[in-house]
Amino acid sequence: MPESQAASDEIFMREALNEARKAYSKEEVPVGAVLVFKNKIIARAHNQVELLSDATAHAEMLCLTMGSEALGNWRLLNTVLYCTIEPCAMCAGAMFLSRISRLVYGAKEMRHGAHGSFIDLFSKNHPTHSIEVTEGVLAHSCATLLQDFFKKKRKKNEQSDDTVR
Amino acid sequence: MPESQAASDEIFMREALNEARKAYSKEEVPVGAVLVFKNKIIARAHNQVELLSDATAHAEMLCLTMGSEALGNWRLLNTVLYCTIEPCAMCAGAMFLSRISRLVYGAKEMRHGAHGSFIDLFSKNHPTHSIEVTEGVLAHSCATLLQDFFKKKRKKNEQSDDTVR
Repeated sequence: MPESQAASDEIFMREALNEARKAYSKEEVPVGAVLVFKNKIIARAHNQVELLSDATAHAEMLCLTMGSEALGNWRLLNTVLYCTIEPCAMCAGAMFLSRISRLVYGAKEMRHGAHGSFIDLFSKNHPTHSIEVTEGVLAHSCATLLQDFFKKKRKKNEQSDDTVR
Repeated sequence: MPESQAASDEIFMREALNEARKAYSKEEVPVGAVLVFKNKIIARAHNQVELLSDATAHAEMLCLTMGSEALGNWRLLNTVLYCTIEPCAMCAGAMFLSRISRLVYGAKEMRHGAHGSFIDLFSKNHPTHSIEVTEGVLAHSCATLLQDFFKKKRKKNEQSDDTVR
């Protein structure tokens, strides 16, 4: 990977991390994403499952929909999607349908990840599209945010259990 | 399968087919879906990828989002999703996240289907949910509509090629 690409990947991943932090502050699972076209961010989103009461409102999905609005086309050719966590099957499937060129993600998601953790959609020969994948960009920061969120949530649940008792 | 369930599956699949026909009339790939809760349709949708300029706007996705609005909860417990065509990986992934109880579909989709055609998401042990699947309900009608659509589209494209020449 050229050094400049690695550097710009980190810059855009920091923006995705900022989105993830917004989710955290709203008590949503902290995952963020930005979509980049011609080296500019054209869409940014964070997970909003609870706020919108919609299981499909993952950061990546919202970002793809917003990106299509920005470009006026459902084909997101020559775009790069940055997301803090390995995408699930729904989001990975949406990336193929949307025809993004490249996916860059931070930390692995061992339970739901569709880039080899739960299933591998990227190693299959998709009938209409292929996507270049770079993983592990700012992985530690991305993972820590998520782990911290679930740790706090467990603690809160334990406390509310105490109250009930 | 109890006979009454087979009969009601056909009734609801006819409603999904009606949705698919709406897509057809708008020159969208004709796929339709309805979501059923306590034996009543709470959401209905058809493919709107072109109209909304959004690759994620599959009938099934729109139906899940509308269903969540109707129930005021992203967990679509005890719901049955009827769709005319075997769902793709995005839609199948969304069904697991939304926790629908049962999926009923019509025809196979050999290129993108995520119930064994392109990939099989349903045979994997999903970490948070499992879904009962019934396939082949009114399969012939569901498939014919799709085949007819692509046949007409190819013919139209050939004619426009002639015009250009």
